[in-house]
Amino acid sequence: MPAIKIGILTSSDRAAAQVYEDISGKEIIRTMNEFLVSEWIPVYRVVPDEQDLLEKTLIELSDTENCCLIVTTGGTGPALRDVTPEATEAVCEKMLPGFGELMRQVSLQYVPTAILSRQTAGIRKKSLIINLPGKPSAIRQCLDAVFPAVPYCIDLIEGPYLKCNEEVVKVFRPKKK
Amino acid sequence: MPAIKIGILTSSDRAAAQVYEDISGKEIIRTMNEFLVSEWIPVYRVVPDEQDLLEKTLIELSDTENCCLIVTTGGTGPALRDVTPEATEAVCEKMLPGFGELMRQVSLQYVPTAILSRQTAGIRKKSLIINLPGKPSAIRQCLDAVFPAVPYCIDLIEGPYLKCNEEVVKVFRPKKK
Amino acid sequence: MPAIKIGILTSSDRAAAQVYEDISGKEIIRTMNEFLVSEWIPVYRVVPDEQDLLEKTLIELSDTENCCLIVTTGGTGPALRDVTPEATEAVCEKMLPGFGELMRQVSLQYVPTAILSRQTAGIRKKSLIINLPGKPSAIRQCLDAVFPAVPYCIDLIEGPYLKCNEEVVKVFRPKKK
Repeated sequence: MPAIKIGILTSSDRAAAQVYEDISGKEIIRTMNEFLVSEWIPVYRVVPDEQDLLEKTLIELSDTENCCLIVTTGGTGPALRDVTPEATEAVCEKMLPGFGELMRQVSLQYVPTAILSRQTAGIRKKSLIINLPGKPSAIRQCLDAVFPAVPYCIDLIEGPYLKCNEEVVKVFRPKKK
Repeated sequence: MPAIKIGILTSSDRAAAQVYEDISGKEIIRTMNEFLVSEWIPVYRVVPDEQDLLEKTLIELSDTENCCLIVTTGGTGPALRDVTPEATEAVCEKMLPGFGELMRQVSLQYVPTAILSRQTAGIRKKSLIINLPGKPSAIRQCLDAVFPAVPYCIDLIEGPYLKCNEEVVKVFRPKKK
Repeated sequence: MPAIKIGILTSSDRAAAQVYEDISGKEIIRTMNEFLVSEWIPVYRVVPDEQDLLEKTLIELSDTENCCLIVTTGGTGPALRDVTPEATEAVCEKMLPGFGELMRQVSLQYVPTAILSRQTAGIRKKSLIINLPGKPSAIRQCLDAVFPAVPYCIDLIEGPYLKCNEEVVKVFRPKKK
């Protein structure tokens, strides 16, 4: 059985220029290690906030690396250089608006500026792509909210079976009809 | 006065091939009979999960059959053959994102995988088109949530006046200014 | 320092024809006066429900008048002549779906027909454009809900610093990292 690969893509001019450390990408890896019982390999990329680079990297993580799940961090705000949702939409065949709705709703419990986030999710081929916020604490809040639906989504797009630590995240898979 | 026609469109490869019975379409008819006091005629179609067939059928139910309301069931998930939202968006002039938002929110009270649903709604000419889930129990939950707004929406697009059983569904029509 | 300009755009056939007074636009001005401590100038326009006129006016308020914030009222429903969200989307570079989601959620506490509203928000150049409902009481409910995020959004698109009356509206600005 091939290894389960998860793409982690940080969109940040400053992290790409190594002006500061990418703690957001590391927070995602830490959370995935907590959530997943299945063995998995992170495929980790840091790129500046450029839509064409983001698109190229998402396509590589999906088509070449065969990541069943790709999570991005950063670039979802209203500023000029925030283009992660645009790159995501450009490479996806199907959008899943429920992810962004739920993540904004959860973040709204903490900060009223959650409505400024343009986070979304979608499917490219056999990859589920999810935009997470840039802030590490918000990353964990969003993953806690949406991850229960992630393994079943990956089943539906014919990806690998993700086994999770039920003490940490309550994954749900409806019974087949 | 011409009869009130409601289109019911089941998107399902297996129901179309008669591998199994379309209980979802029947659940919609049962619910409409409970909700509506006005006389109505169901215009019922079952098609496989093919976007062009779905579009053609939605157009027929709207333009030829003059259904004021068209409800679909099935094909709203993230799987490759789930294309009902795409077909809906392709034939509508206006989208109504509030329907999908509310239906996902209601379904989230039951299953965390509700965020995987891409259900939407929109207007084509004088028809309101609403995507419902495939699962019969979820169909009823969604109709209970959104139907209070449906008769007024049909008023606004110059359709027939729907009279409902107020014991079953609390329809709301704002006072004219 | 140049004055802070806020565009107020009423979309209404009847108000444009002076069949009735535009109380919605006045309600927005009244609310802004309550919210803002910074000096500001309203740039006020009333146009009929025509998409090209709405687009032209939004562009003028953004590009010529340099309004950092443009709020519209009216034209967000499902009726044929409701085209404000279409005009907004046509002139914006970035959409902010969280505004519409939150405004519909808030309005749902009052009326089930809130799901019929297609209100949205987006960014054009250095202007934040927000669609508000037509009804004065709903305008205030929506502004109360979304305004706490507005000054920070305007900071992010490099607009002027809005100072608000914290007794009336609890503005939130996250600390810089």
